[in-house]
Amino acid sequence: MMHDLASKIVENSKKLGLKVVTAESCTGGLVSSAITSIPGSSEIYDCGFITYSYESKTDILRVDPNLIQECGAVSKEVAIEMALGAMRLSNADISVALTGIAGPSGATETKPIGLVHFATLYEGELVTSDKIFKGNRDEIRDQASVYALQMILDIIKKAYPAKDSNKISVA
Amino acid sequence: MMHDLASKIVENSKKLGLKVVTAESCTGGLVSSAITSIPGSSEIYDCGFITYSYESKTDILRVDPNLIQECGAVSKEVAIEMALGAMRLSNADISVALTGIAGPSGATETKPIGLVHFATLYEGELVTSDKIFKGNRDEIRDQASVYALQMILDIIKKAYPAKDSNKISVA
Repeated sequence: MMHDLASKIVENSKKLGLKVVTAESCTGGLVSSAITSIPGSSEIYDCGFITYSYESKTDILRVDPNLIQECGAVSKEVAIEMALGAMRLSNADISVALTGIAGPSGATETKPIGLVHFATLYEGELVTSDKIFKGNRDEIRDQASVYALQMILDIIKKAYPAKDSNKISVA
Repeated sequence: MMHDLASKIVENSKKLGLKVVTAESCTGGLVSSAITSIPGSSEIYDCGFITYSYESKTDILRVDPNLIQECGAVSKEVAIEMALGAMRLSNADISVALTGIAGPSGATETKPIGLVHFATLYEGELVTSDKIFKGNRDEIRDQASVYALQMILDIIKKAYPAKDSNKISVA
């Protein structure tokens, strides 16, 4: 599943001349390792950030510390700032960010284990999404990674000029 | 294998109060995803960089562009600068970096597919290593990740005070 999505991302990004940057928290590099498992991915994958600690989110991706305090590290707001920060630091066209609670600990009254916030950025357009995935730590991380890869593919699909829509092979 | 090593890294780093930063090229996030697959890894894993493009190595980790031109992106010199750059950007105690050729393309006259350069940094001490791994892209990436995890464990082993050496459970 992850391999198929990553393969489609690499194939189609190459056709469109698009580059990808990733900013991951709870998946810890699963999204980037899926993309870079594909031969030729170096043509389309610019770089990735795994901002696991609060400090790395604020110091590296320039997420506003007040935002983390107000909204929590697992929030739509922080996912957006992660995507923006990663885009600023890279030469990419598509930025995808995610922050979530993979468990088994870390749940709060309002935020259950499995909650993941996503944000993508392409040509100034920001798309956000959130999901609550079921399962254990590995299952939550895997599902979140698949979802992030699918969001990248959705962007690529839209990026294709209408006349070339038959050329894309996205599921 | 990777899971066991990662588990030992998390368990023992926690005991010692040490934090880890990773800077990966050819493994593309496999090292970070192995560490973060372990529950509680957020206590010991600060952040990670996947600097896949030349530009991300120079712009983010501040690898000298002349060094890349002179020695190549897959070199001991670049691995060292990646480890230093990641350390500077993080709040970690242990930095591990690797850069290699996972294939199937990318080999040069002097650098075969499977060649990976590693560098670690802990308390100002720099350790470098290089290996030529056999196999396909996935196998090379997996072996390189295992090797990097083992290098982190070696540091942790040395970091234990002699009197506590019986407390460590590193293979």
